[in-house]
Amino acid sequence: MPASIDVAFTPDLLPFFDLTGKTVVVADLLRATTTITFAVANGATAITPVLTPEDAFRLAADQPNTLIGGERGGVKVDGFDLGNSPREYTEAVVSDRRIVLTTTNGTRTLQACRAAERVLVGSFLNLRAVVDRLAQVEGELVFACSGREGGFCTEDTVFAGACVAALGETQLTDAAEAAKILYQIHRDDLLGMLKNCYHGQYLAAIGLGEDLEFCAQVDRVDVVPCQIGGRITA
Amino acid sequence: MPASIDVAFTPDLLPFFDLTGKTVVVADLLRATTTITFAVANGATAITPVLTPEDAFRLAADQPNTLIGGERGGVKVDGFDLGNSPREYTEAVVSDRRIVLTTTNGTRTLQACRAAERVLVGSFLNLRAVVDRLAQVEGELVFACSGREGGFCTEDTVFAGACVAALGETQLTDAAEAAKILYQIHRDDLLGMLKNCYHGQYLAAIGLGEDLEFCAQVDRVDVVPCQIGGRITA
Repeated sequence: MPASIDVAFTPDLLPFFDLTGKTVVVADLLRATTTITFAVANGATAITPVLTPEDAFRLAADQPNTLIGGERGGVKVDGFDLGNSPREYTEAVVSDRRIVLTTTNGTRTLQACRAAERVLVGSFLNLRAVVDRLAQVEGELVFACSGREGGFCTEDTVFAGACVAALGETQLTDAAEAAKILYQIHRDDLLGMLKNCYHGQYLAAIGLGEDLEFCAQVDRVDVVPCQIGGRITA
Repeated sequence: MPASIDVAFTPDLLPFFDLTGKTVVVADLLRATTTITFAVANGATAITPVLTPEDAFRLAADQPNTLIGGERGGVKVDGFDLGNSPREYTEAVVSDRRIVLTTTNGTRTLQACRAAERVLVGSFLNLRAVVDRLAQVEGELVFACSGREGGFCTEDTVFAGACVAALGETQLTDAAEAAKILYQIHRDDLLGMLKNCYHGQYLAAIGLGEDLEFCAQVDRVDVVPCQIGGRITA
């Protein structure tokens, strides 16, 4: 059981958290961490998050057997193999492939967490698997929500709160208490929450509403992707 | 009625909000904005928030009839006339006096909001008066929570949520929705919320538990302090 739990609502608040020696769970439910979770579950051998499309093209050119995925404004970048819809990352497409990924919020958060002792990737798809892993953690635990362009977002916080609620009694900051409350309010209708939150409305407006149903699936897979040295593997 | 409502959970997130032309309500319930509200209600002619004790001494030396107030670590600074306990700012002490105030979080937030068109000061003490004023606002409204040393705090967010709930239907960001939910959870026991939140526990631990009861009073006064040109008046 973690000694304490805190939640950073956006990556811009991470500089106020000393992550050294801590376990961090990165959340970007819509959609980067859902996509990473599903891709790893489907046999992607490694996912490297990078900050810019230019970095993605450069890195992919240097390593064989690599797909480039990600989005800007929610939409697949010109020249990329894949967008940021988790539904695209099927076993047929990603098994035994490496992936370079760049997204607006999630990959930024993953980069900002590198000082942590352990960086895990969470989503509703692997909620139970993440909680089981976190129950073994003995130090301090921080959830790093990706938010949206500097702002708070509901969906990442609700995911953090779901883990807090499942982990049981430990020391919680005000942010962790708030996340737990928000989960308890939304727990019976996670899909409704994804449809009502700002970013969910945006995705539906650009024709990606099916992604919301996909991202609302709880415990579909049993992997906990882990970022080590800038690469995410099972 | 405001066209939209957003909430910045800490002053460090304010750079992501373009405050130009907007109305901002600054909240630091424990205790700066409660103290300012009570001092203005009791006849203080102007309150100038400054960032450091050195600035406070310098400014007070330049203007007659001035009291210096504030805290570091929750405790009155050596040489100051007053701490940051609202209970100290009685009519007998502050009526017709100017005040220079420096606190750990609240005065930082007040300084960070200067680009806004209108900066109001809120607390539970003047909740109804603030809501009545905000109901007249037609542009965008932002609550600037002071948080605690870079982190989220429950009490400022619950205050913001109380205003959101009272204002009724308008466009809310995810942060404003979350604040409203947190208020609805805590509305029936605001004092319990102040006693359980991180900063409330800290104040109780250093012997300032009576401040929590004071700060939990709803609608005790009818003023809305307003910051113009760096000075706060009725």
